[in-house]
Amino acid sequence: MIPKRREEEIRVSDSTVRRLSAYYRILAEFVERKETTISSYDLAEGSGATPARVRKDLSTFGQFGKRGTGYDPRQLLAEIRSILGLDRKWRVGLVGAGNLAHALVAYKEFEREGFVIEAVFDNDPAKIGQLWGKLLVEPMERLGSLSRERKLTIGIIATPAGAAQDVAERLVGAGIQGILNFAPRKLTVPDHVTLKNVNLAIELEGLSFALK
Amino acid sequence: MIPKRREEEIRVSDSTVRRLSAYYRILAEFVERKETTISSYDLAEGSGATPARVRKDLSTFGQFGKRGTGYDPRQLLAEIRSILGLDRKWRVGLVGAGNLAHALVAYKEFEREGFVIEAVFDNDPAKIGQLWGKLLVEPMERLGSLSRERKLTIGIIATPAGAAQDVAERLVGAGIQGILNFAPRKLTVPDHVTLKNVNLAIELEGLSFALK
Repeated sequence: MIPKRREEEIRVSDSTVRRLSAYYRILAEFVERKETTISSYDLAEGSGATPARVRKDLSTFGQFGKRGTGYDPRQLLAEIRSILGLDRKWRVGLVGAGNLAHALVAYKEFEREGFVIEAVFDNDPAKIGQLWGKLLVEPMERLGSLSRERKLTIGIIATPAGAAQDVAERLVGAGIQGILNFAPRKLTVPDHVTLKNVNLAIELEGLSFALK
Repeated sequence: MIPKRREEEIRVSDSTVRRLSAYYRILAEFVERKETTISSYDLAEGSGATPARVRKDLSTFGQFGKRGTGYDPRQLLAEIRSILGLDRKWRVGLVGAGNLAHALVAYKEFEREGFVIEAVFDNDPAKIGQLWGKLLVEPMERLGSLSRERKLTIGIIATPAGAAQDVAERLVGAGIQGILNFAPRKLTVPDHVTLKNVNLAIELEGLSFALK
């Protein structure tokens, strides 16, 4: 059991950040359409939150917008970009050079938001040395040295489940601060490292719940 | 703008279903460890919710557990499996036979939860006819007939962004009821079809927020 205070913090971050990500995308559309104002109703509609929730979320991070006149989409977009840490570059190391890794390297949204995959690692001799665009698939032995050399801060685990914990420990040893884990395995990392798990089945569960 | 009532429903479903999915995984671990009781604190700890939120979520769907004695993990697991629609088989059609599709076909969690990929489609002659395990990559022209023949209810879009809306319309035309969209493009579908978008960048935003 974890103490009450910490629990509250985790809960707020996770769901709030997810909503901020949703607002961010809606704001980007408004800016692209050159709209000059956006209301909490607009932000609520696209994100599945209530307008009251939107106003509360935004007020947590400062005084944006004015009652009755809505928000300036460009200004709010810039604010949320900064809150989410998207106004800087994040250097990412990707471990496991399989199909998922291939798909992630090709996923243009990452780079657009400042997440740049700077290195790919695998322990399969058949994959090491492959050239993926500008990226060379590197052996796991080079994880530590390349992480320091290329100043990697985020590691993505795209290995089979059985290898994931070992890879997580090697990423931590290499000085990585945050891990995004796609392997269907619960991982343990030290407190100073942030771990996020992506479970693709959860998205399908949302569908089956709605369809049933 | 959508009316208040509908908005509330959407909000409740999305976040509640996501938490139910988290409880489901924690319960599966407790059952595997042959634990005979689980508290709302246990469920809160692993899911990032508060114990009060857990109790409220579960009470929405019926009377599980007793005050002070916790829940029976096996019984609650079975209940949530049923609520999420995981106690039946969902036949899935996958469109776009690229790297992401390869990764999804290999993702064992889907089949474990009753989501069975029954067909893969592409319009690339180089991919059509490939054998992926027991699956043959089929031409897009066969989407309608195979969807009916194999009783597909869920479609997964794993195509480039530019093709996604057209594919969505073809899935709808083929009688698909739910769509999981991995393409980074906002799609429009009729009201009777449930659409869920997976944005892999959102998971990285959770990390950058925490690390910044």
